Amino acid sequence: MEQWLKDDERLDYLLAEELRIIQSPSVFSFSLDAVLLARFTYVPIKRGKIVDLCTGNGAIPLFLSARSKSEIIGIELQERLADMATRSTKYNQLTDQIRIIQDNVIGIAGKLGSEKYDVVTCNPPYFPAHEASEKNLKEHLAIARHEIHLTLEEAVQSASELLKQGGKAAFVHRPGRLLDIVTAMRANRLEPKRIRFVYPKKGKEANTLLIEGIKDGKPDLKILPPLYVYEDDGKYTDEIKEMLYGDK
Amino acid sequence: MEQWLKDDERLDYLLAEELRIIQSPSVFSFSLDAVLLARFTYVPIKRGKIVDLCTGNGAIPLFLSARSKSEIIGIELQERLADMATRSTKYNQLTDQIRIIQDNVIGIAGKLGSEKYDVVTCNPPYFPAHEASEKNLKEHLAIARHEIHLTLEEAVQSASELLKQGGKAAFVHRPGRLLDIVTAMRANRLEPKRIRFVYPKKGKEANTLLIEGIKDGKPDLKILPPLYVYEDDGKYTDEIKEMLYGDK
Repeated sequence: MEQWLKDDERLDYLLAEELRIIQSPSVFSFSLDAVLLARFTYVPIKRGKIVDLCTGNGAIPLFLSARSKSEIIGIELQERLADMATRSTKYNQLTDQIRIIQDNVIGIAGKLGSEKYDVVTCNPPYFPAHEASEKNLKEHLAIARHEIHLTLEEAVQSASELLKQGGKAAFVHRPGRLLDIVTAMRANRLEPKRIRFVYPKKGKEANTLLIEGIKDGKPDLKILPPLYVYEDDGKYTDEIKEMLYGDK
Repeated sequence: MEQWLKDDERLDYLLAEELRIIQSPSVFSFSLDAVLLARFTYVPIKRGKIVDLCTGNGAIPLFLSARSKSEIIGIELQERLADMATRSTKYNQLTDQIRIIQDNVIGIAGKLGSEKYDVVTCNPPYFPAHEASEKNLKEHLAIARHEIHLTLEEAVQSASELLKQGGKAAFVHRPGRLLDIVTAMRANRLEPKRIRFVYPKKGKEANTLLIEGIKDGKPDLKILPPLYVYEDDGKYTDEIKEMLYGDK
């Protein structure tokens, strides 16, 4: 086992899937938001080409490999995280399906090819760069969480450039950025079609936003039923348990 | 009683409030959406100036009079509906608080005064004009429901023109128009701050959108907990019953 791991990394179960993922509490661990996005997005079942931007340690490509036979490319700027993702792909013997590329999301369509992909997913940095403290600016977690090297608008633009006409882009973000994300999507030919708000529990405001758009799609937005994460007693709801563990 | 009513009009109870409202099945009856908007909007309790655009038979001003001592003006284009609203105001002895004006919402700030009001509410026509059939174009219900004489953008512009800096505008609309309404609001200095989606029942897509913005407000959007109208057995939920009947 040790041959796969570095420093304080762990080999964790990828929950409902029969997969393992390399994580590190100090560098990067995937969040519930990655699980939510991987379940929310449309995927072609049999064949197609998917790109996951800001892939981190590769959680979304691994999840998607359980839902689709499509070719999946994960793009990650940070060398350390891309390396973790690559090793997880190898450990799970998924190198035929998943390719991890360490590169900048900005301009990536110039390298991978424009208008070639069926689906793009992206769990981008959520927080404005100015909220990251000076001393954290170079840390892996700060880069993954703050818009230091990639703004929301740049992520949306790259997604659109990669997609074929009729291709789908799915994002997870904070509800407070709803207006920014729909504005950026429309400015980049991605017509928002499905939104699902995620609430920590009943009676609370939403804390997560899932949104999918179609490139050059016609306006016809649906607001899906709300998704609750916790019951009043603090346990996961059945819907979240099913996503995480595959049963109730 | 007859002195108050014309043709097939009825004098209906205004539900939770101790008020009556003149309605007609063939001309206009207020909808649940008016109740939802009147409960959703912020109102100054003691003093202030409120305008309700597209007031119809005056349901929203009547509801708001139970929540606020503010001066309330209702604007209605259609003479027949404005007349019903005026008679309901008189019947309820609220002519000191509510004034109904038969006029066009477009340009109304030029007559009522620009940047003078604290709150503007609006339950505008929901459906595109082209969806109204030719023969219905002049009917009261068609005008109230379709964007024949007033588009969403025009309604938002009038609301903004009436409002003071820091004043609040609240609208009810269909979720499919979310992007249009937030775009129109931002283009007219109304920053969306609170959105609540209304779902017919659990597991269904939202069918109504409540949104409130602040004139020249700072971006900080909250998505409130979902509101369900019906239980699985088809009865109103407790929250709707409380709005409609004042108790559970």
